[in-house]
Amino acid sequence: MSTATVQAPPVVAAPRRLGHQTVHWDCAPAVIASASIGGPMEGAGPLGAYFDTILEDNRYGERCFEQAESKILRDAVRSAAGQAGWQLAEIDALLAGDLLNQIVSSNYAVANTPLPLLGLFSACATIAEGLIVGSSLLEAGVAARVVAAASSHHEAAERQYRYPVEFGAQRPATAQWTATAAGAIALGVPDPAATAASQTSGAATGVPRLPRLTYATIGKVVDMGIKDPYDMGTAEVPAAWDTATVHFQETGRDPAYYDLIVTGDLARIGSEIFREGMRRRGLDVSSRHVDCGVLLYRAEQDVHAGGSGAGCAASVLAGYLLKEMRAGRFRRMLFIGTGSLHNPIALQQGQNIPTIAHAVAMEA
Amino acid sequence: MSTATVQAPPVVAAPRRLGHQTVHWDCAPAVIASASIGGPMEGAGPLGAYFDTILEDNRYGERCFEQAESKILRDAVRSAAGQAGWQLAEIDALLAGDLLNQIVSSNYAVANTPLPLLGLFSACATIAEGLIVGSSLLEAGVAARVVAAASSHHEAAERQYRYPVEFGAQRPATAQWTATAAGAIALGVPDPAATAASQTSGAATGVPRLPRLTYATIGKVVDMGIKDPYDMGTAEVPAAWDTATVHFQETGRDPAYYDLIVTGDLARIGSEIFREGMRRRGLDVSSRHVDCGVLLYRAEQDVHAGGSGAGCAASVLAGYLLKEMRAGRFRRMLFIGTGSLHNPIALQQGQNIPTIAHAVAMEA
Repeated sequence: MSTATVQAPPVVAAPRRLGHQTVHWDCAPAVIASASIGGPMEGAGPLGAYFDTILEDNRYGERCFEQAESKILRDAVRSAAGQAGWQLAEIDALLAGDLLNQIVSSNYAVANTPLPLLGLFSACATIAEGLIVGSSLLEAGVAARVVAAASSHHEAAERQYRYPVEFGAQRPATAQWTATAAGAIALGVPDPAATAASQTSGAATGVPRLPRLTYATIGKVVDMGIKDPYDMGTAEVPAAWDTATVHFQETGRDPAYYDLIVTGDLARIGSEIFREGMRRRGLDVSSRHVDCGVLLYRAEQDVHAGGSGAGCAASVLAGYLLKEMRAGRFRRMLFIGTGSLHNPIALQQGQNIPTIAHAVAMEA
Repeated sequence: MSTATVQAPPVVAAPRRLGHQTVHWDCAPAVIASASIGGPMEGAGPLGAYFDTILEDNRYGERCFEQAESKILRDAVRSAAGQAGWQLAEIDALLAGDLLNQIVSSNYAVANTPLPLLGLFSACATIAEGLIVGSSLLEAGVAARVVAAASSHHEAAERQYRYPVEFGAQRPATAQWTATAAGAIALGVPDPAATAASQTSGAATGVPRLPRLTYATIGKVVDMGIKDPYDMGTAEVPAAWDTATVHFQETGRDPAYYDLIVTGDLARIGSEIFREGMRRRGLDVSSRHVDCGVLLYRAEQDVHAGGSGAGCAASVLAGYLLKEMRAGRFRRMLFIGTGSLHNPIALQQGQNIPTIAHAVAMEA
């Protein structure tokens, strides 16, 4: 066939783009409700009181761990929708993903429901990607009610990524514990009158502040040559550095703008390296940095470097962080989801672990 | 902790939403350029002339099929960007996905490039999902230049989903042939002056018509109890029926509105069932329906029911369909990506094959 070699037309600019990776939403999408579910270990951790549901066991009444994960994700979505006062048939899009191959937890979770699904994958950064896509659908006016959700399951992830837990493989000190958990966040643009009431009252009157999503920095894939699947926190640090640095550059903000800078999940070892590297970049986050993988478990819970998994960041955000923000405990949060984007076969084939970090700014 | 039980605020409506699943974009995002790459078998098929690149072999100079797939995807993205006249650093987001576990083809394809990545998974419907998310980013004004892309690789998919090809497993007549191919589509909102020139001139003067994305219908996950991974076309039909029917209902259009109604990929057996079911719904598409899995190979190429794979629909769309549309051969196309959302472990665990279909209307 003949191929036209004419000049492609110039395109119009994006008014809500700041620099190469950062966007802002004029409509300021709000967290209308959020829900989190955790397994028994997660429930026994320091954030236990923030879960809407804590499982009695990791099977959750299902025949296998994989189906249990699907049920956890489904229940988190239903709970967030319920708390938002939304019927499932009113939800315009579910933005969901998980760690299982072909994101089957998400796919099976909503089979034969009225939920339109846009499946996502950014590993442990999936909830951040969901917030970015969801907020953009709201800004575009193509959706009024969206839910972003992500999950992971310890036993299902271990046997897919490493070894079945029954095998009893020894875990090095750098290993992270994939959380059995899910988080779901219902986003919408509040009716202006309702918003005004909530913004002026705050925690004092019991009316929750609405966390609004204002900026996001979409991550690039960073590959620093790391190959150890038992040290994913360290692998994800360069992506976190990159996205955080770009975020501060492109927004003109500095770390002190935020009350809280959250990563999910670098765990203990990665968090140290992250803070040190940010300090060397002249962007000291030490006094306000926390990590979901560090927050989720007690040191004595034998989780080595800390938690991980798409459900770790999602449940800590949907539970602890957003509930505390709605209660007025802090006002400005930068949430940086971090994910390892490999699979076991790629590592066997000699590839590295590429990683990504997506950042979302939330302000109440 | 104390949980606030106050009423969630009402949210504002979505002005660009028609019904529960369908959206429209006022900005009418345009296909600025598109590129497709195929393997030797795909190049030898009836659409060979439409590929920008045809591989000499399925390894493409790489050590393994999985890395070859990554390279195909990367090259398709670079080619589409190049034809659009865009530097990679000018692209605001890549919306990409593939069939490999954890979408590693996409992740490795853009490691250490300036491309912000939003990873997607809808199996063979991924390119449609990418167009929906990409167009919504443009409508939201958070992106000016996006690329949607998807890939698959025959040998890599066979050994992940079924058996290594060296094993020589017999394939039933319903089996589809996973394509070794990738497609990438560069989307932007053309500057109005440039658009006016192109829309009035058309094929006659050699200036291509710009296909504009006008409507999309986001799919729900449909599970009809089908379990046969050697008959995915049939499994995907109910999702295609559902999305197509909802599309016509919510837009008020009927099949005759479109010059071409494309599915990707139901293949020969699924296509028959799709057309028959649409006829029974009073929505006869027979005279204008084609399927990417049927188009991609000649009957004598021993592909059984036809092609499949995320790269099949993506490359047929980015190659044949969009090039013919730009050349003015047809003006209105409904593209319905269809995907099977299972993984092999889920089937071994007794689960069904859930499926999804996303539809995008393109008009030149």
